[in-house]
Amino acid sequence: MYLSDLLGGSTDVTALAEAAELLLNIVWTLLGAFLVYFMQAGFAMVESGFTRAKNAGNIIMKNMMDFVLGSLCFFLLGFAVMFGPDAAGIIGTSGFFQPTALADANGMYRGLPIGVFMIFQTVFCATSATIVSGAMAERTKFVSYLIYSAAISIFIYPVTGHWIWGDGWLASMGFHDFAGSTAVHMVGGVCALVGAKIIGPRIGKYGTDGKPKAIPGHNLPIGALGVFILWFCWFGFNCGSTTGASTNLGDIAMTTNLAAAAATLAALFMTWIRYGKPDVSMTLNGSLAGLVAITAGCDVVSNYSAIIIGLAAGIAVVLVIEFIDRKLKIDDPVGAIGVHGFCGLLGTVLTGVFAFKDSGIKLSTQMIGVGAVLVYVLVLAFLVFTVIDKTVGLRVSEEEERDGLDVHEHGAPAYANFNLHRDK
Amino acid sequence: MYLSDLLGGSTDVTALAEAAELLLNIVWTLLGAFLVYFMQAGFAMVESGFTRAKNAGNIIMKNMMDFVLGSLCFFLLGFAVMFGPDAAGIIGTSGFFQPTALADANGMYRGLPIGVFMIFQTVFCATSATIVSGAMAERTKFVSYLIYSAAISIFIYPVTGHWIWGDGWLASMGFHDFAGSTAVHMVGGVCALVGAKIIGPRIGKYGTDGKPKAIPGHNLPIGALGVFILWFCWFGFNCGSTTGASTNLGDIAMTTNLAAAAATLAALFMTWIRYGKPDVSMTLNGSLAGLVAITAGCDVVSNYSAIIIGLAAGIAVVLVIEFIDRKLKIDDPVGAIGVHGFCGLLGTVLTGVFAFKDSGIKLSTQMIGVGAVLVYVLVLAFLVFTVIDKTVGLRVSEEEERDGLDVHEHGAPAYANFNLHRDK
Amino acid sequence: MYLSDLLGGSTDVTALAEAAELLLNIVWTLLGAFLVYFMQAGFAMVESGFTRAKNAGNIIMKNMMDFVLGSLCFFLLGFAVMFGPDAAGIIGTSGFFQPTALADANGMYRGLPIGVFMIFQTVFCATSATIVSGAMAERTKFVSYLIYSAAISIFIYPVTGHWIWGDGWLASMGFHDFAGSTAVHMVGGVCALVGAKIIGPRIGKYGTDGKPKAIPGHNLPIGALGVFILWFCWFGFNCGSTTGASTNLGDIAMTTNLAAAAATLAALFMTWIRYGKPDVSMTLNGSLAGLVAITAGCDVVSNYSAIIIGLAAGIAVVLVIEFIDRKLKIDDPVGAIGVHGFCGLLGTVLTGVFAFKDSGIKLSTQMIGVGAVLVYVLVLAFLVFTVIDKTVGLRVSEEEERDGLDVHEHGAPAYANFNLHRDK
Repeated sequence: MYLSDLLGGSTDVTALAEAAELLLNIVWTLLGAFLVYFMQAGFAMVESGFTRAKNAGNIIMKNMMDFVLGSLCFFLLGFAVMFGPDAAGIIGTSGFFQPTALADANGMYRGLPIGVFMIFQTVFCATSATIVSGAMAERTKFVSYLIYSAAISIFIYPVTGHWIWGDGWLASMGFHDFAGSTAVHMVGGVCALVGAKIIGPRIGKYGTDGKPKAIPGHNLPIGALGVFILWFCWFGFNCGSTTGASTNLGDIAMTTNLAAAAATLAALFMTWIRYGKPDVSMTLNGSLAGLVAITAGCDVVSNYSAIIIGLAAGIAVVLVIEFIDRKLKIDDPVGAIGVHGFCGLLGTVLTGVFAFKDSGIKLSTQMIGVGAVLVYVLVLAFLVFTVIDKTVGLRVSEEEERDGLDVHEHGAPAYANFNLHRDK
Repeated sequence: MYLSDLLGGSTDVTALAEAAELLLNIVWTLLGAFLVYFMQAGFAMVESGFTRAKNAGNIIMKNMMDFVLGSLCFFLLGFAVMFGPDAAGIIGTSGFFQPTALADANGMYRGLPIGVFMIFQTVFCATSATIVSGAMAERTKFVSYLIYSAAISIFIYPVTGHWIWGDGWLASMGFHDFAGSTAVHMVGGVCALVGAKIIGPRIGKYGTDGKPKAIPGHNLPIGALGVFILWFCWFGFNCGSTTGASTNLGDIAMTTNLAAAAATLAALFMTWIRYGKPDVSMTLNGSLAGLVAITAGCDVVSNYSAIIIGLAAGIAVVLVIEFIDRKLKIDDPVGAIGVHGFCGLLGTVLTGVFAFKDSGIKLSTQMIGVGAVLVYVLVLAFLVFTVIDKTVGLRVSEEEERDGLDVHEHGAPAYANFNLHRDK
Repeated sequence: MYLSDLLGGSTDVTALAEAAELLLNIVWTLLGAFLVYFMQAGFAMVESGFTRAKNAGNIIMKNMMDFVLGSLCFFLLGFAVMFGPDAAGIIGTSGFFQPTALADANGMYRGLPIGVFMIFQTVFCATSATIVSGAMAERTKFVSYLIYSAAISIFIYPVTGHWIWGDGWLASMGFHDFAGSTAVHMVGGVCALVGAKIIGPRIGKYGTDGKPKAIPGHNLPIGALGVFILWFCWFGFNCGSTTGASTNLGDIAMTTNLAAAAATLAALFMTWIRYGKPDVSMTLNGSLAGLVAITAGCDVVSNYSAIIIGLAAGIAVVLVIEFIDRKLKIDDPVGAIGVHGFCGLLGTVLTGVFAFKDSGIKLSTQMIGVGAVLVYVLVLAFLVFTVIDKTVGLRVSEEEERDGLDVHEHGAPAYANFNLHRDK
């Protein structure tokens, strides 16, 4: 129904206002959903560009398939878990296999036609799922990754999502995670941490002395393209999370952009100081770190606060990625744990520090929220990856890993016409 | 004119409703148009990524030039053929060289300012045109491709487009092709079939025993990027085809996404079962197959029907591409005939099977529609390609094909700094 | 505040009209801003694809950092220079470090919430800044580029921007530069001219006989992707420059698209005639030339005028790039001076020739405008680059240039797994 259909000839001003608001909100929410879908392209380019050529086809297939399975599983089950009628603040309880049944008599859910709301939530779920592939890149069995993708889309992401954005206990407490620093990014980042820890480092990542070796990405231009795509789509991610046309959208776009810019600059100088040269891939991770960190509070902080949050994220991401690499000896090829896991946590907590006074957001609540989500996801991800590991197995064979996953898992190299270095 | 200009100080509620609806529809239709334009990038990446490095510059030039010629030819002639005053349900008859003359006194055409409607239709026409380049890749003369591009934009696409979306006979019959499974994709796919058949296979594609050999694409990451871009833009393609802000946009986005996801999954498992390994490029073609198939009925089928249509398309595309390759011995480097031609047909027919009862869509009408379009395009494409073949010639020389079209047709390789395999 | 919040229960029709207009304008302006942001990806791909593999990481870092510094500097200082209260038609005078203070009591600036206006202006500023990196590619010190980026964002772009789009003297005269052929592109192009002239040609660009040698780009597919991205985003650039939903948006999209198409075709045939073969990178530059040229007048010319402007730009860009390369012996690796500098000037002047009679646009004013901006930017850019050259130095060492900037400036190659030609 177009505007005139909604009015049906009525000249009632309130009816017109409602109809116009509804359509404006639909347009805005869908623009956001489309952009968030396109983040899949960004992740695919980042993850393939920053890993090796011999695994480029495989990582892209994982990116594609986590979106595919995420879309189907979230439709069939995840949406009901997240947005079904609440039980005890913990979980949704109906709408399984028929999520549209959750709509009211007019087909509406939370003020939007349920289809609009569902596509928007679907792409958010899939964003969370896709974060893991980068951290477990170059050594994870394809079939195991498919199982994990279903698991996160059905009972990891939707449960904490219910707490935060459904009618769950964190929402009731006033926990503020506007567009998902915690609900999307930290959830994905913590799964990445557990998965990368359990599967272990790539062959050759750590020398016999235990020191990490850099394994450079094979295609920085497409990796950078991925970051540009993600930054672009993040405007949809953050501004779209109003799920409607509102007067503060420009402010959200500004805080998002300033935080990302500040974080990029901070990461650039951090690497310049620490390594003597401005590092390309770490700087690009700085951009993502800033975007992740501002996501929780982009609607409730000032432009200057956004810059501070960005600077904090840009500095932190360099130190945390180093720490994970050198001290924890967890091999995360693209830095996803630091970017999404740590900076998701950081941004959510800093929202408690920098939020406008009148927002009523409390630091303590923010900390309870990230703590609870952290524990739940750690436990669930541990169970999921352990079960996969003990059954079908998480890791490819040594031969397969050395030759590259593309040839063994998919039967074709990603760059058939190019001469590649033998030793890679 | 902005909203206040349209009202001119009036406080009439109906006038306000009309003005608001108009501007909402303009915003939505243009968003769709922009996204559909960007499909050109998707096709360019898919087609270059899935063919060989030595022809990468050439295929990209073809993608660029079919859009360029399509834009100009459709403006000058095609729009009038498609949307000019109808003659006998067959063809439009005025507006040549001056399409804006088709607007009413207020500059409107079908409820939109004619410029809005024209840019939207232009990018759809160009989408149809660009499908062919992939199927005829790596052996078609550049100048011949330019001639074909003009032909499809002037008198192939606009004629069947008139039947379906103008005031033509299929529109009158109730043929339902919401966003163009037939009007855009099958038209392009059938042209691709005829072109690829007439030009013949690439050197080395079929052995002396007649068996096809795989010629792998040179850059799977950019090919995959193309698929992600196309999926993203398909939201604009399908949702934009309402040419206005309406309450069912979310439902259209949902059916589009679910069909694509289901088709991807189906194609993945089909290749896994048949070839023993999940194939990257065929799985990505599965995504496109699902998108093409849902395009006709995305507005009139349920989410579950969309999944079924997607599964059907994902299974079919694998079998049909094999059939074309092995039985028909038509060399379609990127699978465009199966994806756009067959799945366009399939989706249009399945719309007749799965459409909501109250939509009044009949299977028989759907079959008449695809049959008529098939015959018209087969005949016209045969004439066009035959005339080109007999005059300027369709195919490059053997030497040129072996060395690659980039160096011979354009004087420069696409990857100047890289070592490529000699034998490619 | 959503529509209902803005109304606060009022049933006043005028209030509703104002609120609806405001939200429509916000939605449209932000869509434009997001697309213009994404031009960064386009420039990054164009500039890296059309230069050498050994410098691909460096050029991408420059693209990223000019946006980052542009965003921060424009927020802190540039916005106030451009949009602060006018002094003598020359410069803005307040809002430094607190640009939001320029808003009225309702947080509005020029009819939009100031955050909406600011993000839109930020991405335009950054577009101007990023043009230069291509012209100075493959030999400019990274740190020097950072300094230049700050300079253009603080006191080059914002000053002429104030003249044209602030309350400056050119705006008062009726100078028409709708979306920035001059304000954005010519400013960037003239900086590129000065920078490329001062830094001198790349090693090996000119033989001992003074004749230029072609140094082909390393990755035409991603270069072409960049052009497709830019064309896509240009719809946001030009249509978004209404900063609101209006009935002429389709006309703007049509003129934009037709000019780009005509220019591409003209450049294609120019190279075909002059070099015997249709040249890939020059044709793609033709697309950009048409887009740049139509930007000034896209809202005030007919479709046919747009085609003429496009043809002029497509022809001119080939000749001008040749002239710069062969006669001026200025080494501009990607042709940015011809594309943005010359075609920005050309399009602005041709707006004075082709604008609708009732627009009141005068050719003389257009010429005064481009002349004044040319002089200002020439002088300022000369000062900035000279100061950088005499202090930190503009150019990398000969060894660094020969080996590639990626390894020396950033410590890692862009294509770690690929065999590259030694001699590049």
